[in-house]
Amino acid sequence: MIRAAVVGSTGYSGQELVDILLKCPDVELSCLTARVAEPVKYSDLYPRFAGRTDMMCENLDKEDIASRSDIVFLALPHTVSMRFAPYFLEKGVKVVDLSADYRIPAEIYGKWYGKEHSDRDNIKKAVYGLPEMNRDGIRGADIIANPGCYPTSVVLALLPVIGRLAGKGARVIVDSKSGTSGAGRKASVPLSFTEVDEDFKCYKANEHQHMPEMEYVLSGYAGDEVRIDFAPHLLPVKRGILSTIYIPLDDVSPEDAGPGCFAEHYSGEPFIRVRENGLPGIGDVAGTNFCDIGVKVTERTLIIVSVIDNLIKGASGQAVQNMNLMFGLDETAGLL
Amino acid sequence: MIRAAVVGSTGYSGQELVDILLKCPDVELSCLTARVAEPVKYSDLYPRFAGRTDMMCENLDKEDIASRSDIVFLALPHTVSMRFAPYFLEKGVKVVDLSADYRIPAEIYGKWYGKEHSDRDNIKKAVYGLPEMNRDGIRGADIIANPGCYPTSVVLALLPVIGRLAGKGARVIVDSKSGTSGAGRKASVPLSFTEVDEDFKCYKANEHQHMPEMEYVLSGYAGDEVRIDFAPHLLPVKRGILSTIYIPLDDVSPEDAGPGCFAEHYSGEPFIRVRENGLPGIGDVAGTNFCDIGVKVTERTLIIVSVIDNLIKGASGQAVQNMNLMFGLDETAGLL
Amino acid sequence: MIRAAVVGSTGYSGQELVDILLKCPDVELSCLTARVAEPVKYSDLYPRFAGRTDMMCENLDKEDIASRSDIVFLALPHTVSMRFAPYFLEKGVKVVDLSADYRIPAEIYGKWYGKEHSDRDNIKKAVYGLPEMNRDGIRGADIIANPGCYPTSVVLALLPVIGRLAGKGARVIVDSKSGTSGAGRKASVPLSFTEVDEDFKCYKANEHQHMPEMEYVLSGYAGDEVRIDFAPHLLPVKRGILSTIYIPLDDVSPEDAGPGCFAEHYSGEPFIRVRENGLPGIGDVAGTNFCDIGVKVTERTLIIVSVIDNLIKGASGQAVQNMNLMFGLDETAGLL
Amino acid sequence: MIRAAVVGSTGYSGQELVDILLKCPDVELSCLTARVAEPVKYSDLYPRFAGRTDMMCENLDKEDIASRSDIVFLALPHTVSMRFAPYFLEKGVKVVDLSADYRIPAEIYGKWYGKEHSDRDNIKKAVYGLPEMNRDGIRGADIIANPGCYPTSVVLALLPVIGRLAGKGARVIVDSKSGTSGAGRKASVPLSFTEVDEDFKCYKANEHQHMPEMEYVLSGYAGDEVRIDFAPHLLPVKRGILSTIYIPLDDVSPEDAGPGCFAEHYSGEPFIRVRENGLPGIGDVAGTNFCDIGVKVTERTLIIVSVIDNLIKGASGQAVQNMNLMFGLDETAGLL
Repeated sequence: MIRAAVVGSTGYSGQELVDILLKCPDVELSCLTARVAEPVKYSDLYPRFAGRTDMMCENLDKEDIASRSDIVFLALPHTVSMRFAPYFLEKGVKVVDLSADYRIPAEIYGKWYGKEHSDRDNIKKAVYGLPEMNRDGIRGADIIANPGCYPTSVVLALLPVIGRLAGKGARVIVDSKSGTSGAGRKASVPLSFTEVDEDFKCYKANEHQHMPEMEYVLSGYAGDEVRIDFAPHLLPVKRGILSTIYIPLDDVSPEDAGPGCFAEHYSGEPFIRVRENGLPGIGDVAGTNFCDIGVKVTERTLIIVSVIDNLIKGASGQAVQNMNLMFGLDETAGLL
Repeated sequence: MIRAAVVGSTGYSGQELVDILLKCPDVELSCLTARVAEPVKYSDLYPRFAGRTDMMCENLDKEDIASRSDIVFLALPHTVSMRFAPYFLEKGVKVVDLSADYRIPAEIYGKWYGKEHSDRDNIKKAVYGLPEMNRDGIRGADIIANPGCYPTSVVLALLPVIGRLAGKGARVIVDSKSGTSGAGRKASVPLSFTEVDEDFKCYKANEHQHMPEMEYVLSGYAGDEVRIDFAPHLLPVKRGILSTIYIPLDDVSPEDAGPGCFAEHYSGEPFIRVRENGLPGIGDVAGTNFCDIGVKVTERTLIIVSVIDNLIKGASGQAVQNMNLMFGLDETAGLL
Repeated sequence: MIRAAVVGSTGYSGQELVDILLKCPDVELSCLTARVAEPVKYSDLYPRFAGRTDMMCENLDKEDIASRSDIVFLALPHTVSMRFAPYFLEKGVKVVDLSADYRIPAEIYGKWYGKEHSDRDNIKKAVYGLPEMNRDGIRGADIIANPGCYPTSVVLALLPVIGRLAGKGARVIVDSKSGTSGAGRKASVPLSFTEVDEDFKCYKANEHQHMPEMEYVLSGYAGDEVRIDFAPHLLPVKRGILSTIYIPLDDVSPEDAGPGCFAEHYSGEPFIRVRENGLPGIGDVAGTNFCDIGVKVTERTLIIVSVIDNLIKGASGQAVQNMNLMFGLDETAGLL
Repeated sequence: MIRAAVVGSTGYSGQELVDILLKCPDVELSCLTARVAEPVKYSDLYPRFAGRTDMMCENLDKEDIASRSDIVFLALPHTVSMRFAPYFLEKGVKVVDLSADYRIPAEIYGKWYGKEHSDRDNIKKAVYGLPEMNRDGIRGADIIANPGCYPTSVVLALLPVIGRLAGKGARVIVDSKSGTSGAGRKASVPLSFTEVDEDFKCYKANEHQHMPEMEYVLSGYAGDEVRIDFAPHLLPVKRGILSTIYIPLDDVSPEDAGPGCFAEHYSGEPFIRVRENGLPGIGDVAGTNFCDIGVKVTERTLIIVSVIDNLIKGASGQAVQNMNLMFGLDETAGLL
């Protein structure tokens, strides 16, 4: 049995990790941590886990966690993960970090996350945990930078075509819409039900910290600079991201960029479903690790729509998919 | 023109007061106050007021407010209003208090609101501002205790029958469901969209501070002790309260307690609508000052359903209705 | 492998059955039927099943279904199931009927469902499929009447106390709130998003067809007549039922009817969770086969709150739980 | 008093017209029509109108309507309005048509609405009822083609810049999100609460019938061909449209296209509010006739966000604004 710790188990990604790991046949939860005043039954904090686990949630120190675990999932805020990861790696414990701390080079990180990076060495060792792009690298990795939720939805939508389009100086316009759990579990007036329900708004247009992550990952993959305009919006739904992506082109054709190209590119992928007709909705993937993709090609523009569950394929599900690869397990274990 | 101040203008009741008062032909807003660091345009705080008012929201002291106003609406938290009301009354400024501070006797208040009352004299002078019960008293009052939202929905539903039923030792069971704005505008994990949407729960069963208010008001009206079991629930809607009220009786008949009795009792009331057939829903009254009431009489049980908008008839609309009565204006001004 | 057919696979209960049965290790879906013009891939109808099953949805006749199946789940409308069940029983195929057709005696059925019952013999053979009440009977049954969603939430909440209270002439008041999927998958203005969202209403107070089912089942269990007042409400949520139950009593005590009694009664039950403190919410059980129960005892009234997912414990999950018992499988297979 | 008829008063636009016209001081409702079997009190159909109007809703013929009215609002489906409008115009009754029948030339109409136009003459006489573009024309018009909801949100967002940008061969990408009331009041599985809540999807990308309306109106205004890519999405909210508009440009600057340009263009407009900072949300305009606009200029792209209430500024409010202009009333009467 693989012993897995969830560090930061009380946020939404942490809860989802616990939910998924409880379904993994070859995994045993080793510890659930959080900043709690004293140990408390996890199912007392979250009654939906009653009858499924009797584990305690505790404020453990690194030493305890490391000694009990083969792998730790860091479901911590940005800038906090990098204080924990080096210790675990040194002790030979594998790390899947769900924060942004190991996704992009330190110089870009410093600019967008407002803090100097304190663990530059491990950024270089970290593998960007998008299995559909980096499966082999993930298999051999000690530390995984689990992708951001928006970038997962956008990068997966673009991989099949970006290589061919980037050289043509493509401009990519990304209009994303996310459910509220993407903002994390926190007390906040703007995230309160009374403010969010029956409302809908755009925020951080071209100022969101996930934009440089998309550009960095896609540019590296395409071998050419990819520039993105990115406008995220807050949806009155709990979970899910839908990204509508527009690539204005003068000579796009269904042969170059239709559903067929996407289906071929993702042939054999267990969690990517390309829609032959029509466009997917958030409801098609909510509660699953799938990313569904639909395409519409018009004379002058390629429109791609992708949907994921931000907490699963966009966070905890993908994290478990990465763990499965790192330990040579069935990639879909716990996830179907 | 009557000069009206909204003290505590940034909460939900405060905003709703501003919205309604802007529609009152004989009222001029004199000041909008809140604990702001420095004066700020109210429409910069709440853009939906842009183009409707250019007023500033300021952190004014009592003296300023009193000198500019004929009436003040105190849209303040419980235990705060009683620190302000005496000064305004002394200066001859009329007061409508939307908090619980003047609704119930000091001894009951102390027990349920966890604080000794500091202004016992004015409790006695305050008139409970339910026009359908106390219209004449309200006309001559200097200070109005504006009813709680749940009590408004429950007391209005019971007035037509409680006098006849109370003496029979009736037990009244009240199952109320409220939208989230009833909890006020605050940062809170349990009130966040991610927690509230697709959820529904019962809270404070027989422990809610509005229960003694209902019992006190109804007992006084009935001239006999009325005891209530009260279970409030949190609905995933922004606004509105629906109360389902059960009175188990051995000899209830449609003649005693059917829609006809209610219609007769409320004949001529501008804001009470008795449903001849069927039961009302929150959508029928959302955004209005109406209270809709439906009745179902069965062999052994009288079931009454009432609905209000908690921020209007349950707070700010009723407050303006009271103001209209206090100043001899058309009772419905600004409210239809 | 047990071969299971879902007859009526396109409604909400049908979809949920497919979802659960795909997770059952010892079950093989034998056919998915619906009134489709021609065979169509089930995952083309419901894209969320893509990548999970390639089965066709077909308009099969009884003979076909019976020849391929060890058990059939009838996810059909009331009055339709009774046209199919006798044939399957005759062919030795076990039946779990999710409609109301086999739950109550024919005379009561005729009165509430507006149609003479055409299969009176099998009503007598049918076992009411509430495992927590009838586990042994279910094990040996050929046909299961799967309980209604409201009755599941109410009967489970009352079993621990009804026997002791019924003899005292208890009146039980049930205020239930259900999500919209309880009304089935149908085109209807009153069920449209624009009508339901931000609304909440009471319907069919003391006229709902699930009321006689509750009374019949509880009276039989208590050995004394149980009378219920039942007011269902429509919640703006997709799934879930919360029932708030009031039993006015003159001498109720926490020893007689507190959480302890409930916990003891349900000790060992895999899907009943009694809350020691506080009351459960729909979010605690959504997506699961659990029924969570909380209790509040006051001087004069016992208040019980129970929650279930109407499509799982209130329909398809309970149906699979029954199948597991009928075939001697682990009762929780596919359900945890 | 101006006598106004609402033809098709039971749909969402019809109800909203009734609501607004009841607030207009110089207007008297002359008749409310619908295909009802026999006359019925409008407030029995829609209880929220109880206490506000006692009018009947009737299935009247054209002659009756014309003889009682100075103006008729046609809140009818596309292809139905053109069967009614000619008669009213002939009788000297002014017409505001809320359908698409008079918005675009007959040839474009035939292609997108699947029906040959039967009243080509009046298309030419009709004035496109967007006051911010055509105020003078509206004043003198006999028939107004009230703009579509999406086009209102998009055209208003583009008027200040399209003239200068169109000549540069601009491509305009419009990503719109609409609440469900935009689809009208109808029984439909895809519009049911159970399907829509917690879901979000893109539909009719580059195939929506409002796309040619936008292109036609904007091309005419700009004096140059404007081409639009348009992807509408269905939001789980009742009301409101938010359009995010992207114009990729190589030399856009805040001076050319910043908030200042928009504020200047719309200076004095009573219902357009340009946001100096930040971007508007649907909640800022829900329930009002305002259109709020925010702008974000980046190096290479101009992003414009506009919001309206689809039933008010996108339909009935704008219709009343047009009526006010046609009859020389205060343009804002009934609308603030």
